[in-house]
Amino acid sequence: MTNPTRDTPRILLAHGGGGRLSAQLIRDQILPRFGHGPLAPLPDAASLHLDTPDILFTTDSFVVQPPLFPGGNIGDLAVYGTVNDLAVAGGRPRWLSLALVLEEGLPLATLQTVLDSVRDAAARCAVLIATGDTKVVPRGQCDGLYINTAGIGERLPELTLDRRRIEADDAVLVSGNIGDHGLAVLAAREGIGIAGSPLSDTAPVHRLVDVARRFGPAVRFMRDPTRGGVAAVLNEIAGGQAFGVTIEEAALPVSPGTRALAEMLGLDILGVPCEGRVLMVCSATGATAVLDAWRTLPEGRGAARIGTVTRDAARVCLQTLAGGRRLIAVPQGELLPRIC
Amino acid sequence: MTNPTRDTPRILLAHGGGGRLSAQLIRDQILPRFGHGPLAPLPDAASLHLDTPDILFTTDSFVVQPPLFPGGNIGDLAVYGTVNDLAVAGGRPRWLSLALVLEEGLPLATLQTVLDSVRDAAARCAVLIATGDTKVVPRGQCDGLYINTAGIGERLPELTLDRRRIEADDAVLVSGNIGDHGLAVLAAREGIGIAGSPLSDTAPVHRLVDVARRFGPAVRFMRDPTRGGVAAVLNEIAGGQAFGVTIEEAALPVSPGTRALAEMLGLDILGVPCEGRVLMVCSATGATAVLDAWRTLPEGRGAARIGTVTRDAARVCLQTLAGGRRLIAVPQGELLPRIC
Repeated sequence: MTNPTRDTPRILLAHGGGGRLSAQLIRDQILPRFGHGPLAPLPDAASLHLDTPDILFTTDSFVVQPPLFPGGNIGDLAVYGTVNDLAVAGGRPRWLSLALVLEEGLPLATLQTVLDSVRDAAARCAVLIATGDTKVVPRGQCDGLYINTAGIGERLPELTLDRRRIEADDAVLVSGNIGDHGLAVLAAREGIGIAGSPLSDTAPVHRLVDVARRFGPAVRFMRDPTRGGVAAVLNEIAGGQAFGVTIEEAALPVSPGTRALAEMLGLDILGVPCEGRVLMVCSATGATAVLDAWRTLPEGRGAARIGTVTRDAARVCLQTLAGGRRLIAVPQGELLPRIC
Repeated sequence: MTNPTRDTPRILLAHGGGGRLSAQLIRDQILPRFGHGPLAPLPDAASLHLDTPDILFTTDSFVVQPPLFPGGNIGDLAVYGTVNDLAVAGGRPRWLSLALVLEEGLPLATLQTVLDSVRDAAARCAVLIATGDTKVVPRGQCDGLYINTAGIGERLPELTLDRRRIEADDAVLVSGNIGDHGLAVLAAREGIGIAGSPLSDTAPVHRLVDVARRFGPAVRFMRDPTRGGVAAVLNEIAGGQAFGVTIEEAALPVSPGTRALAEMLGLDILGVPCEGRVLMVCSATGATAVLDAWRTLPEGRGAARIGTVTRDAARVCLQTLAGGRRLIAVPQGELLPRIC
């Protein structure tokens, strides 16, 4: 009798030791997928030539659990998360770093699935994996794998994003359904299956930002509502400012499965992370044109105007379906750990 | 009776949830230390202006165990590691990202010690922490904390580093004692105490690179011998090339404590990581001048010429004290896991 698990190729501690097995992992798994760019000569640092000296730089670590979830995995999430941070800050994403922390015993097949997703996601966003690193930690650490991506983007000169440019009566837009990512991961982690259970919205938003360029100064500010969801972003935008924001519950785009799951779990969808949406504040006069432009893209089909900037200093409110108003607080943060 | 451990402030899962506690951690621990640069407005991506469009980009994750070790900690290691990768690739380090993965229950005091080291190390190298991220994972994961730093440097036009420019009779130099970092961490992890036990050499090498600029094309190639040590770097340099390298055992700078510990543990010092050294290949005629220049700096006081480039294609050899010759193999990688 053979034991099939003994024959499963797995990650060993020595794959992270900088010796022969590290070199083999890079040769067999990294270079075939990412060796077409500046990473090819495996230098200590990638040599890049920029088209502009004005750049954006960001980083994110991904510790999502489980690493494979409905609608995506830690690999595409790590690419889109960093691409999106560059995009909503007004940049054209160009290069990413890819740093893997792998658990000893991780099946090689899982790593391959994740790296395939990284490769495909990077291609979809026209970014190159420029540099990387791999470490291995002992069994029981890191739940399979963690990924860090840092990213460099080139500043888009048409956009001047600054929350201090926001004015009363400006419009608040979102590019699609909210809350899908957080609830998809939570359902997978807790083993909750319901009809129409959500898929993660993990996706790049760089094209949504690209079409927004033509509206120039009408675009005041953008964020991707990831950790802390729409509630955290709105409070961050309005915090300490002379303006507030009021959101219309009736206008919030929410998929039926996400709504059902949030009700079942008693979660406020406004605090649930998205991983493929843009939240934009733009001038009242520009709002319809931005929505029309977004809706020409598949990733913007569900775009909606969800609220308005008010003169109510620093207050973020929800106009409820029942006709009431309530304050939208900053989420505490403990309800949805390890969602990205 | 009070239980002092219950009163110790510790990291909670909610510190990574993107809500109120995340904001508090950033306000209290990150901004006071790093808020003087582009990180201050806490954008999704930092906005940077470069002095040249030719840049270097690198990343490294640090999972060293224990995170505090003789001579340093994971914080300064994470700064110097990335600064050094930029420097030896021929760059002037400018900006770093700082991504923390924290274990639930980590004493806040430990995080503060590490962040103080990050701040001081960055100041020493004149780099700014431009952007960051913090995640928290449950107890039992990540051994306290992991850190990822990515870095951007500006290319130094005087240096053209390419291993294909290496020629027979070129000199191989190292900027100081080898093996101290790996053995210091290993001794701390295993609880081995001997007289003169090594301190980590973790330190920045950017000034060693800076003084090398004046030798221009005489400088062929540089690496910092981290994972896999001098043995891995030399094999990487010579791999597939028409030249080889011979190292003189008598010329290797090794501290007495490191030598004693390596002998006690049966480790080959050539395979043990350094974290503050440069290995350089330069022209035979330039070698003395480079060594003289290095030795004017405290971090280059122990610089030595350790070997010569030979016509022995792809072969890396050690000329032993006993008068013999042996091949220096690429370390497998399993002997020294989690050393950085």
